[in-house]
Amino acid sequence: MSHEVLGYAAQSPESPLAPYRFVRREPRTDDVEIRIEYCGVCHSDLHTARNDWQNSVYPVVPGHEIIGRVTRVGAGVTRFKPGDRVGVGCMVDSCRVCNPCQRGLEQYCVEFPAVTYNGRDRHDHSPTYGGYSEQIVVSEAFVLRVPEGLDPAGTAPLLCAGITTWSPLRYWKVGEGRKVAVVGLGGLGHMALKLASALGAEVTLFTRSPGKEADARRLGADHIVLSTDAAQMTAAAGRFDLILDTVPYVHDLNPYLPTLAIDGTLVLVGYLGDLNPVLNTVPLIMGRKSVAGSLIGGIAETQEMLDFCGRHGITSDIELIDMATINDAYERMLKSDVKYRFVIDMASLKG
Amino acid sequence: MSHEVLGYAAQSPESPLAPYRFVRREPRTDDVEIRIEYCGVCHSDLHTARNDWQNSVYPVVPGHEIIGRVTRVGAGVTRFKPGDRVGVGCMVDSCRVCNPCQRGLEQYCVEFPAVTYNGRDRHDHSPTYGGYSEQIVVSEAFVLRVPEGLDPAGTAPLLCAGITTWSPLRYWKVGEGRKVAVVGLGGLGHMALKLASALGAEVTLFTRSPGKEADARRLGADHIVLSTDAAQMTAAAGRFDLILDTVPYVHDLNPYLPTLAIDGTLVLVGYLGDLNPVLNTVPLIMGRKSVAGSLIGGIAETQEMLDFCGRHGITSDIELIDMATINDAYERMLKSDVKYRFVIDMASLKG
Ligand SMILES: [Zn+2]
Ligand SMILES: [Zn+2]
Ligand SMILES: [Zn+2]
Ligand SMILES: [Zn+2]
Repeated sequence: MSHEVLGYAAQSPESPLAPYRFVRREPRTDDVEIRIEYCGVCHSDLHTARNDWQNSVYPVVPGHEIIGRVTRVGAGVTRFKPGDRVGVGCMVDSCRVCNPCQRGLEQYCVEFPAVTYNGRDRHDHSPTYGGYSEQIVVSEAFVLRVPEGLDPAGTAPLLCAGITTWSPLRYWKVGEGRKVAVVGLGGLGHMALKLASALGAEVTLFTRSPGKEADARRLGADHIVLSTDAAQMTAAAGRFDLILDTVPYVHDLNPYLPTLAIDGTLVLVGYLGDLNPVLNTVPLIMGRKSVAGSLIGGIAETQEMLDFCGRHGITSDIELIDMATINDAYERMLKSDVKYRFVIDMASLKG
Repeated sequence: MSHEVLGYAAQSPESPLAPYRFVRREPRTDDVEIRIEYCGVCHSDLHTARNDWQNSVYPVVPGHEIIGRVTRVGAGVTRFKPGDRVGVGCMVDSCRVCNPCQRGLEQYCVEFPAVTYNGRDRHDHSPTYGGYSEQIVVSEAFVLRVPEGLDPAGTAPLLCAGITTWSPLRYWKVGEGRKVAVVGLGGLGHMALKLASALGAEVTLFTRSPGKEADARRLGADHIVLSTDAAQMTAAAGRFDLILDTVPYVHDLNPYLPTLAIDGTLVLVGYLGDLNPVLNTVPLIMGRKSVAGSLIGGIAETQEMLDFCGRHGITSDIELIDMATINDAYERMLKSDVKYRFVIDMASLKG
């Protein structure tokens, strides 16, 4: 039992995304079938479409910032009914029994989570296809409730950019009286400013571009530090409890480490790869500082974040695009020419 | 008011340590005068004597693992009296009023602590001279009580090697039910095994040398992992809550990161410098892992460690040497040819 749906796929690292018909399974007992309304465009989509991580299995149907309406549910589904507005993020399943899964850390499942695209279904081992499509079928345990009153298009990026910044803010106990800095003002960085500010922290943006100041303040930054200005960097010495580094490409962390307070942590959420130039250990040792990483967030934590955003009226700043312009959007994203996230209007898919 | 004492000093980066007469101050109101019985030999002594860190001011009288007897006290001293056995570690003063000092983190004092040698006295700005000498005069706030019943020579290395490993074990909450690994089996590493084991943790030694197994088990290791054996390293994946890396020279951290559990930390205590080869962020992000640093420990924490060692009968394994053999001892230390710490018998100074 299955049915054909329309999506957009990359057929090879070199080919642009183009219409592609593929099969979605009929809902299993625990499945929720979702008609997709909006899908955010994440850097991972582009990296996977182009095989930048050398692990892509084609065709790739990207998209893991999914908002839609429930159309059908399996017989065992209790938390959703047709018509509900729901979200799906980066994961569609995990082993559910390992220690991390039991602790709500499905992203660190010892068997690795089944990712929303370029993954494998845990039951029938078929490839997973993401949100650049009219429909998706997902086990209810990995479906999120979308709070009333949030703009659904602006909510889509919360499913990856939102939770990726929320999870470390929560794990490292950001709130009233804590000083947080954000490196990078893209899709992740702009969400980090909004969320850290709403959590009550004193928020600073590190930026290389003086022109970003007004926007950063509007998004929640209390202070701006020009990382190219040695005097400003020196003045920030020892200040931050947490630095959330959202930059998606290789860059030098050493200038930021002295701005950490004692016991402070710089957490990487955007960059997978070698830390060039090399880290120097002196600022780590002379202040018990840490460099850490963090990957998206768990399902319960994602729901917590969505509920928090519902209470605080937080969504992503987006540019709504038609499905057919996705390849142009990728080129603009590579130039950081987006404020701050592209979201595909799935109504345009059949247009 | 002052008086001349005998010590051993380096007069230049190239000159061997040799007898040197210098002045110690008369005790101030809050000072304790100590006749030194034993002084441990730390890698920092050698680095400073030879100006490896480009910050040495000659003459350098090394030594910051000091055990002795109180001979005189200033009028305001309340906690010590002549005849008491006491210790002095890496610090002899700090600003005492900054936030770290108030929190018992004098090692991270915002004005930097006054270090025991190659530093400056905070009042008269005279150079500080360390424990390779017959006597030292230190403010009582930086003098430690030595528990009854501990061998004083074996206690000396607790003042640096002991506290340097104790502090991160405590900060990262090592105890019953926690899995700790130690990288490197030298002065620091052998103390880490003893302390982590006495704290109730399950302790593993990473080593490159199969020959160290029996000794490691005697010192407290429950498991040995040969870091040169790929199968053993793979089997250790995801295991450790904390890795205490005591290696004092540059080395590759990347093989150890996959052996950290989720939320695990690798803490560097031995190596100041560039992390070559470069760190890869993937294992950090795929498990919320951290690379951190830690510097010695605070004064209250040092007393806590000494008291713990007193209750558990823990001292360093040492080779007791005469002062005149210090230059040979340095050469042997460079070859890791010591089990596990040289301690100078200060009775030999005038011999
Ligand atoms: Zn994403
Ligand atoms: Zn699992
Ligand atoms: Zn030392
Ligand atoms: Zn201070």
